[in-house]
Amino acid sequence: MSSRQRVPVAVLGATGTVGQRFIALLDRHPWFNPIALTASERSEGKTYRDATRWVQASPIPKQVADMRILPSEPPLEAPLVFSALDASVAYDVESSFATSGAVVISNAKSHRMEKDVPLVVPEVNPEHLEIARGSRYAPGAIITNPNCSTIGLVMALKPLWDRFGLRRVSVTTMQAVSGAGIPGVAGYEISDNVIPFISGEEEKMESETQKILGSVQSGGVTNAKLALSAQCHRVPVVDGHLLAVSIELERKTDREKMIEAWENFTAEPQSLRLPTAPSHPLRYWHEDAAPQPRLHRDLDGGMAVSIGRLRPCSVLDYKFACLSHNTVRGAAGGALLLAELVVARNLLQGVAKASMPTG
Amino acid sequence: MSSRQRVPVAVLGATGTVGQRFIALLDRHPWFNPIALTASERSEGKTYRDATRWVQASPIPKQVADMRILPSEPPLEAPLVFSALDASVAYDVESSFATSGAVVISNAKSHRMEKDVPLVVPEVNPEHLEIARGSRYAPGAIITNPNCSTIGLVMALKPLWDRFGLRRVSVTTMQAVSGAGIPGVAGYEISDNVIPFISGEEEKMESETQKILGSVQSGGVTNAKLALSAQCHRVPVVDGHLLAVSIELERKTDREKMIEAWENFTAEPQSLRLPTAPSHPLRYWHEDAAPQPRLHRDLDGGMAVSIGRLRPCSVLDYKFACLSHNTVRGAAGGALLLAELVVARNLLQGVAKASMPTG
Amino acid sequence: MSSRQRVPVAVLGATGTVGQRFIALLDRHPWFNPIALTASERSEGKTYRDATRWVQASPIPKQVADMRILPSEPPLEAPLVFSALDASVAYDVESSFATSGAVVISNAKSHRMEKDVPLVVPEVNPEHLEIARGSRYAPGAIITNPNCSTIGLVMALKPLWDRFGLRRVSVTTMQAVSGAGIPGVAGYEISDNVIPFISGEEEKMESETQKILGSVQSGGVTNAKLALSAQCHRVPVVDGHLLAVSIELERKTDREKMIEAWENFTAEPQSLRLPTAPSHPLRYWHEDAAPQPRLHRDLDGGMAVSIGRLRPCSVLDYKFACLSHNTVRGAAGGALLLAELVVARNLLQGVAKASMPTG
Amino acid sequence: MSSRQRVPVAVLGATGTVGQRFIALLDRHPWFNPIALTASERSEGKTYRDATRWVQASPIPKQVADMRILPSEPPLEAPLVFSALDASVAYDVESSFATSGAVVISNAKSHRMEKDVPLVVPEVNPEHLEIARGSRYAPGAIITNPNCSTIGLVMALKPLWDRFGLRRVSVTTMQAVSGAGIPGVAGYEISDNVIPFISGEEEKMESETQKILGSVQSGGVTNAKLALSAQCHRVPVVDGHLLAVSIELERKTDREKMIEAWENFTAEPQSLRLPTAPSHPLRYWHEDAAPQPRLHRDLDGGMAVSIGRLRPCSVLDYKFACLSHNTVRGAAGGALLLAELVVARNLLQGVAKASMPTG
Repeated sequence: MSSRQRVPVAVLGATGTVGQRFIALLDRHPWFNPIALTASERSEGKTYRDATRWVQASPIPKQVADMRILPSEPPLEAPLVFSALDASVAYDVESSFATSGAVVISNAKSHRMEKDVPLVVPEVNPEHLEIARGSRYAPGAIITNPNCSTIGLVMALKPLWDRFGLRRVSVTTMQAVSGAGIPGVAGYEISDNVIPFISGEEEKMESETQKILGSVQSGGVTNAKLALSAQCHRVPVVDGHLLAVSIELERKTDREKMIEAWENFTAEPQSLRLPTAPSHPLRYWHEDAAPQPRLHRDLDGGMAVSIGRLRPCSVLDYKFACLSHNTVRGAAGGALLLAELVVARNLLQGVAKASMPTG
Repeated sequence: MSSRQRVPVAVLGATGTVGQRFIALLDRHPWFNPIALTASERSEGKTYRDATRWVQASPIPKQVADMRILPSEPPLEAPLVFSALDASVAYDVESSFATSGAVVISNAKSHRMEKDVPLVVPEVNPEHLEIARGSRYAPGAIITNPNCSTIGLVMALKPLWDRFGLRRVSVTTMQAVSGAGIPGVAGYEISDNVIPFISGEEEKMESETQKILGSVQSGGVTNAKLALSAQCHRVPVVDGHLLAVSIELERKTDREKMIEAWENFTAEPQSLRLPTAPSHPLRYWHEDAAPQPRLHRDLDGGMAVSIGRLRPCSVLDYKFACLSHNTVRGAAGGALLLAELVVARNLLQGVAKASMPTG
Repeated sequence: MSSRQRVPVAVLGATGTVGQRFIALLDRHPWFNPIALTASERSEGKTYRDATRWVQASPIPKQVADMRILPSEPPLEAPLVFSALDASVAYDVESSFATSGAVVISNAKSHRMEKDVPLVVPEVNPEHLEIARGSRYAPGAIITNPNCSTIGLVMALKPLWDRFGLRRVSVTTMQAVSGAGIPGVAGYEISDNVIPFISGEEEKMESETQKILGSVQSGGVTNAKLALSAQCHRVPVVDGHLLAVSIELERKTDREKMIEAWENFTAEPQSLRLPTAPSHPLRYWHEDAAPQPRLHRDLDGGMAVSIGRLRPCSVLDYKFACLSHNTVRGAAGGALLLAELVVARNLLQGVAKASMPTG
Repeated sequence: MSSRQRVPVAVLGATGTVGQRFIALLDRHPWFNPIALTASERSEGKTYRDATRWVQASPIPKQVADMRILPSEPPLEAPLVFSALDASVAYDVESSFATSGAVVISNAKSHRMEKDVPLVVPEVNPEHLEIARGSRYAPGAIITNPNCSTIGLVMALKPLWDRFGLRRVSVTTMQAVSGAGIPGVAGYEISDNVIPFISGEEEKMESETQKILGSVQSGGVTNAKLALSAQCHRVPVVDGHLLAVSIELERKTDREKMIEAWENFTAEPQSLRLPTAPSHPLRYWHEDAAPQPRLHRDLDGGMAVSIGRLRPCSVLDYKFACLSHNTVRGAAGGALLLAELVVARNLLQGVAKASMPTG
């Protein structure tokens, strides 16, 4: 697919920490061209540079630095809209963009569990995207990216689910502070500390995983039958959510076959060669003490998920460690890959044919 | 001084991180009895327990847990008022309490540099308290505690200033996150990082030090003649501000005499045996790598200042390290000691004779 | 029990981080009097002050600062010996002290799983101490303190085990760096990171818990029947091991009864009023986000265990958070309490009658 | 310069943290081809993969993973040798390689202050390289890279030194833990802490800066006349040394001219287009709170130095913040750039003409 004509896109909530990641990842993107940025009222009219407390390691891309912040209201002349809005405002704003005909790729929790809204991880359940065609918003759509800790989990579970089946999953998370944003969790609260509570997070991991591993039936998703229990913690780490996972398999197997299932895993984003797709979505590390957030979160640009320490569990069947970059794969990068899949599957067709990338 | 009748005191801004320290330190205080707590409007009417995101290592004192939060308005039936208010509201609120006849001990910057407001570190310039008697607020008063990083510095400088004189002082601070409060600096901003800027901090250290080391002349303070330059940093440390200090002396001396000046230093709070006074306000550590925030900040309940690494400086004369606990000595503990000094010097006399502790 | 005549005690491995905690906790102990300190060969003959890289927040106790380091060989004229030795040397050294007639209270893993060596948490299985009377070392003894992460777990499990029975326990630990000692885990390795592997730790938690909850039968311990799976992590926290625990009960019950079981829990150290015993060994916190290492590890001098967030688990029955201070309750403080129990149960009788505290 | 024939190079001490950075940076280097790796005796004969506790975020380069570790003894068939050896062994090993005819680029302190050994920062004093031609080791040579904290300082000072002259410099460092290596400073020591002492560091910064800014006279270097005082601290940051600098200028100037001097600074590595040279060696950040280690250390691959917060100083003339990546620009990357300069200046000529890259 060439990039002669890039799709004009808008970023809602562009000044927050997830919004900044979108801006950084969209810089020189072969398919998408950011033409409109929005933020809260007090930033309207300012340049992006002035409105943003930029905390990325790469500098603000020149293309957007002097764009003026717009209000979060349609229309924005962009058939594709990325939403990094706060959950407090996301519901209504995203609905109004979708109703106006845009395809909204949302990182907010607000619409995730709705019947006609796909909740998709491109490597895991790309076929769920199709329920958007019959949604109340068509020809617009709201398509959602899961919670940052759900993503790593379902990617690690997917090949096991497909080949061996899963009955029960118990997961304990150790989540990075970037997931809380700014101000988010205070430096004074998290220094020399672990906080054993993240509001709503355990419930999200449990319900989202069941929807993502579910199947499309009569235009909606039927949840997977899978007992899942999550215990979520904030730890003093900058980026990268680490999970300790125990699983009970439907059909018993051995350690080698499970590792093989992970190492050979490849999916639609890889076969479509989507620009943001990691070449190997899952990497199994054979070292004793891997994966670790600081060493492995940036694997394949932060889009690959690392797994390690697979060993027998005396309560369920097996246990392992799993790591993903929470603001790349778990937020902006995941949403970007999702948008690429939307384009590749022609879900943008109705609204934006003229401006689509062509081959 | 016995504690048969403790002075009723109010704490303004009691729910913030400095306010919490006041509450913790006032628990079982022999002279003071907290009878009124205030906070911002949305906390009014709640119990202290419900209104506060308590982050102290000791539990909420029982005596205050069920007190109702009051508005920050006089009168509160307390002749002595501790203010842990935000600078944004402190000016007016403190003025109105002082005008109503209360003695306000303030930790906010708002009134510090005013001509008729004493800015006092009890071991350094207790005599400055006297200017309160002639202030516009008399018989009420506003008496201020310096900035958290100023306090450690002036305490270390005081014995040198008295015995050898000082011409120039250059100080670089490495300040703990508790000084920024909650939300303050975000966990995401300070993790794996140092922030080389704290708004207004360098100016405060420079001007406050000159006022504190100044002399009382015709009812006001004449600043000390002392060139002082500060460079302030936030570091990922929970509590304890560490300073790297270089000094030029007025009269040259040797290392041993300087250490002796520190080790022998004692002042009015010690001779008056004030309840919160450390037995030795300054401690010189002879170890190579001292003082360190985590190891030495709690010395003498967090009220003593640690000094170490005195060595020649090839730019000025000497350099050394200095550490103090920023929310104890540098905030609530310092203010409490100041209040004890106010009582001991009979500055509360006019307003609160009946309720004063008696001997 | 009066302290007219304190028991002379030795500390083996007194210069390491656990050894330092022993020294700090023995300072002014009413029953024990440290008279001999040992360390590795290169420290022999030095004073304790010179041989030790002291990293405690309290200063080195005066009584021991100038003691000379001795070799770790019997006899040391102390009927009671605390061992903070490295596992690499502990086996032989502890054996030789026990054989020479001393009662060794060991914090090392070396002897823990031996048949005639009690592995005891004073509140959980004090009756196990009795197997020492028939051990190969009698009248000497080796009595062991469990691994730092096991202790918090078994204390939280004990009241549930007694009242409701337990079938399966799944635990994920987030362990502080002080547990790794110095040099231990490097600052460069753990900063901005979580390490999902601690050598041997998972195995220790699993086997030690089964021994501690086991029963004494024919002079040895029969392990408890309990499936237990541990996943252990090192996190960038100074002190305090936090556990995420899921359990399956033998007899179903409700949340209130479980909390009541914890809140009412009291045991032999409390009824004997041992000097180091916490008044309430378990504390249930009702707040959303408790317990947290920095806020709650020091509860009751670091000897009480904090529990919180009890809620249903969709994989097993219930899940909760549990926190204990790893170098106090989980190491030196736990061993000290164990020694007090040894004295109170007259296990020192044969060797040290003359020097025992009398009542 | 083409890369048809890359120079074979050896890396001494390849398994430590600086050695690992060399390996990572040499991967796909256009001029240099690592053919021999050495480490301490206990690693000899192992593959690099097995001998190394790899802690870089990028994976071990395939080319070196299976190389066998050799002893650190000449000859190694490499005309160019990078030394990441510990200072404890570096002196003799480096001497023997140089005597055998190799050009040794050393990151160790051992030879830095010797009269016939150049101590060079490529952008600052490339002309010092020439003294190697007359050294005792010719046609071999030892060429040294300064201490990690010296490099950022001299790069920031260089344009000021050239245009305005410098009389006095006072610097306080806040240095990352990666500079201490593994085990280096323990996680337990540095967590929630700042350590105000790094052995020998202050002396190195002071003497090395004077040599680097010095001039070549009669085959040796005459030190710059410059009073310099350093205060060095270890802070809990992974990578990036931040400096707080105060300076007194020889010839007064204004803020704008100083910033201009930094922004326009370019030097020999840039004009020669050396492969590792940053396009802009110095970057001035105009934001309030820049530079910060986490946000700015990776600028230009970690080879550029960031400066910010230039403002008047009331003790000397001006003060500013300065940041550089300590293991890239401050160690392996700096040494690599130095080696490129050595090649470009034909200092390898005598020993290695045949294998040099040709244009």
